[in-house]
Amino acid sequence: MKVHNDYMTVHTKQKREFQNITPSLKLAMEKSGIRDGLILLCALHVNAAVFVNDEEPGLLQDVDEWLEKMAPPRDDYKHGTKFESGANTHLQSLLAHHQVLVPIAAGKLELGPWQQVIYAELDGQRPKRILIQVMGE
Amino acid sequence: MKVHNDYMTVHTKQKREFQNITPSLKLAMEKSGIRDGLILLCALHVNAAVFVNDEEPGLLQDVDEWLEKMAPPRDDYKHGTKFESGANTHLQSLLAHHQVLVPIAAGKLELGPWQQVIYAELDGQRPKRILIQVMGE
Amino acid sequence: MKVHNDYMTVHTKQKREFQNITPSLKLAMEKSGIRDGLILLCALHVNAAVFVNDEEPGLLQDVDEWLEKMAPPRDDYKHGTKFESGANTHLQSLLAHHQVLVPIAAGKLELGPWQQVIYAELDGQRPKRILIQVMGE
Repeated sequence: MKVHNDYMTVHTKQKREFQNITPSLKLAMEKSGIRDGLILLCALHVNAAVFVNDEEPGLLQDVDEWLEKMAPPRDDYKHGTKFESGANTHLQSLLAHHQVLVPIAAGKLELGPWQQVIYAELDGQRPKRILIQVMGE
Repeated sequence: MKVHNDYMTVHTKQKREFQNITPSLKLAMEKSGIRDGLILLCALHVNAAVFVNDEEPGLLQDVDEWLEKMAPPRDDYKHGTKFESGANTHLQSLLAHHQVLVPIAAGKLELGPWQQVIYAELDGQRPKRILIQVMGE
Repeated sequence: MKVHNDYMTVHTKQKREFQNITPSLKLAMEKSGIRDGLILLCALHVNAAVFVNDEEPGLLQDVDEWLEKMAPPRDDYKHGTKFESGANTHLQSLLAHHQVLVPIAAGKLELGPWQQVIYAELDGQRPKRILIQVMGE
């Protein structure tokens, strides 16, 4: 079995921003030479998320607003304002998840017709690291 | 390391329906010959979910109602009505997750006493594909 | 490829309790001799969760309260009171997730600067089992 680790850095212009990063996964898969296996994608931050869903811009806006509604910014979190990011971004990272797996079959990312890999920046405007770990044969 | 991919298709009678698909995972594991490793289970759709929990019918009804409460159908989503599925099913897929891992140890699915693998159809009455990827030795 | 399975048991003093179990994962990795791969961590229970985030005590209290708010104890769940755990703990396990992956790169857990592995006991005061499955080379 081969393990191939790639790291990518995202530096968004907006504080919150959603990006389709599927092309970066394809590139990592091609560099790895792995044709059957999986990719483990991990945001290396507690205030970001990665998920697989439709990349339609209206939907991504819905996801953004839904996350803020489910875990809104508040003044009374115990994880107070002295910390870098508000507790709401941590809770949203928990909700949308900081990691996702993408299967590889016969040299292709095995995604459904509407599935794309989305990076959700919840507290950006600074460099954030993502690990793309490709494993398989 | 071996990688064995199986695909199953679910076509539910109801629009929303929850099914215990653990037997399909066992079958895929047996076909693969893999005795130590893991199964990556992925719904290849943006309006379905898979998760591990109790299969008690009352609980599955609670999960269904809870998902609808957490991300209800609404008229004002940006992802409008011209699309195939409502934004609520996408958000629910995000919440309950479209993928899950099941460890394999000594030729058995390593699940706790109350853990079963559940497929949650959120917009059914048509064929939906699921990937069962078995990896290991 | 090697697969190394470790099991740990947690028995909390409190009904609900959050613990940083990152040291147990490091230990399992060292015992396995695996230097490149991943750890699949699974709570073998339907009323517990594991996740990766900051271990700051105020934040863990926020997570605990947020889970209870998102899926509160209620009398009208279909999964009634005759069962061992309330439906709320099942829903919270679904929300915070019963499993997580930790990549291993060059003999180290690949976690971001603020990322720790947290076990969330949602119905404790009794022994609960966790599988630490290390896979790789």
